[in-house]
Amino acid sequence: MLAVVIDRDECDRPRTRLARDVPPPAPAAGEVLIDVRVAGICSTDLELARGYMGFRGIPGHEFVGTVRSPGPLHGRRVVAEINVPPPGFDGNLTARKHAADRTVLGILGRDGAFAEQVALPAACCLPVPDDLSDDVAVFAEPVAAALQILEDCDLSGVTRAGVIGAGRLGLLCGQVLTRACPETDLLVRSAARAGLAAELGLRPLSLDAVPPGRPYDLLVDCTGAPEGLAWCLAHLRPRGQIVLKSTYADPRPIDLAPVVIDEIRIHGSRCGPMDAALDALARGEVAVTPLISTRYPLAEAERALAAAARRENVKVLLDCGSA
Amino acid sequence: MLAVVIDRDECDRPRTRLARDVPPPAPAAGEVLIDVRVAGICSTDLELARGYMGFRGIPGHEFVGTVRSPGPLHGRRVVAEINVPPPGFDGNLTARKHAADRTVLGILGRDGAFAEQVALPAACCLPVPDDLSDDVAVFAEPVAAALQILEDCDLSGVTRAGVIGAGRLGLLCGQVLTRACPETDLLVRSAARAGLAAELGLRPLSLDAVPPGRPYDLLVDCTGAPEGLAWCLAHLRPRGQIVLKSTYADPRPIDLAPVVIDEIRIHGSRCGPMDAALDALARGEVAVTPLISTRYPLAEAERALAAAARRENVKVLLDCGSA
Repeated sequence: MLAVVIDRDECDRPRTRLARDVPPPAPAAGEVLIDVRVAGICSTDLELARGYMGFRGIPGHEFVGTVRSPGPLHGRRVVAEINVPPPGFDGNLTARKHAADRTVLGILGRDGAFAEQVALPAACCLPVPDDLSDDVAVFAEPVAAALQILEDCDLSGVTRAGVIGAGRLGLLCGQVLTRACPETDLLVRSAARAGLAAELGLRPLSLDAVPPGRPYDLLVDCTGAPEGLAWCLAHLRPRGQIVLKSTYADPRPIDLAPVVIDEIRIHGSRCGPMDAALDALARGEVAVTPLISTRYPLAEAERALAAAARRENVKVLLDCGSA
Repeated sequence: MLAVVIDRDECDRPRTRLARDVPPPAPAAGEVLIDVRVAGICSTDLELARGYMGFRGIPGHEFVGTVRSPGPLHGRRVVAEINVPPPGFDGNLTARKHAADRTVLGILGRDGAFAEQVALPAACCLPVPDDLSDDVAVFAEPVAAALQILEDCDLSGVTRAGVIGAGRLGLLCGQVLTRACPETDLLVRSAARAGLAAELGLRPLSLDAVPPGRPYDLLVDCTGAPEGLAWCLAHLRPRGQIVLKSTYADPRPIDLAPVVIDEIRIHGSRCGPMDAALDALARGEVAVTPLISTRYPLAEAERALAAAARRENVKVLLDCGSA
């Protein structure tokens, strides 16, 4: 089958390529085979391509597909919980996503969805309501990640909040946080992104226009760069909170002295509840289709990945052939 | 007067020297002049000498002294709250220590106590009970910093805790945390430090002997080095907590991806309640004199600072001439 593959070149450098001869996945016991309909490109995918997590295999963890295997899910459109615990594991989302011997779809030890087909445990699949389009449902995973910030921070005492990194994830986190904390700024670099933020009902604020005096009680770092954390530390009030969503391939020097001096709380935050994300999408609480900048067929995945890396684009979708 | 001075050499490199011709401090309105009796050398002092905070002036923020100025404190032995808010400022400890235009004794915009005399607002001074010796009272500031960790973390759900960096501050944090969480390991490199930890009633554990599988719910980083945070991230359970006490002069590369992947909470933590520290010392809840490795007269402060930088020493005291 056709699939995006991250491997290593002859100099052991990470390499991402479209492969046409990838064997289709062989579902293990309890797993189902899924025809991928649409997949979304996330910043994590771009970091994986740069070597993050040392990943080798097929990336892609945002998708909607149709179950091909027989059983109760046969023929159903599904999205999936990407953290896959070992067989027989029993536990809630938090336990599953932190199980020591988990795999993570397209990120850790498990081939992902930038392919014609993907295999996942049936228990990880969530049927998509019929009235939710593929282009909406494909956002379930990042919307879940955005919802998770409400679990990971403490909103008591928070009056003014901000989200920095007005990209794929930041525009979703901004919507979730604005519902919980109306005084939320979506911090933007460009007028174009400010326009999109306003269209989504957010309150865009240019980085240059942030008032002096460290106005924020809470900042969510969605920049995907160490500069994001440094910016947060410079603009957060003492004893304020940072929700850290950014991961990146290269450790870089970060001055953490302000964390101690200003007694900042940092909360690492990763995946969230997929069922709540589907509900939020079904109720129209999070607008997602305005984020779609462009789309490519899977056969043009290399162009799609290049497009996703360009600042002017937000979400880039891959049509994987089964829509 | 005699004082330790941090300035810059002709190449603008930080330089620390003993000066014999420093003008005595001139107390401002509301301030008292204090004859320093004993001062303690902290890792922060060593970092200031390496350029941390860009500090220039007299370092030293752990001290006990005798008030020379007339008034209600005249002749009293005192320790002092080191965070000095601007005149007229009204607020609790948290507000004072984070006041935007504060000075901090021997750290930020205010000459410190490695001198024969120091000036501080009378409102910052706390009388020392007569039965508390100078060698105990001089620990009030670092004991306050240790007590602060209980304010800054969430002990619910914490079964096993650890303190890494079994030095001046770590041995105090270990004692405070052990009282709150009996299953606390004091993580040590050397047998000598293990012996001292055991003498203090702590549970020393060699870094080599930490069981596999990330056993800690809470870790306190007192290493004063970025390696401390990396160690914590490698040995903390998912969704565990780190109390960050370490500050250091040089930003160095730190891989923060585990913070996100494992959804770690990091709490920066600095100064604590001086009154509670004096109480804890008076009640004998924190043993401090076993930490005193050696002492020097102020006139040999350069030797004292060199001694404090050697790993075999814990607390090094300066006898500043007025004991």
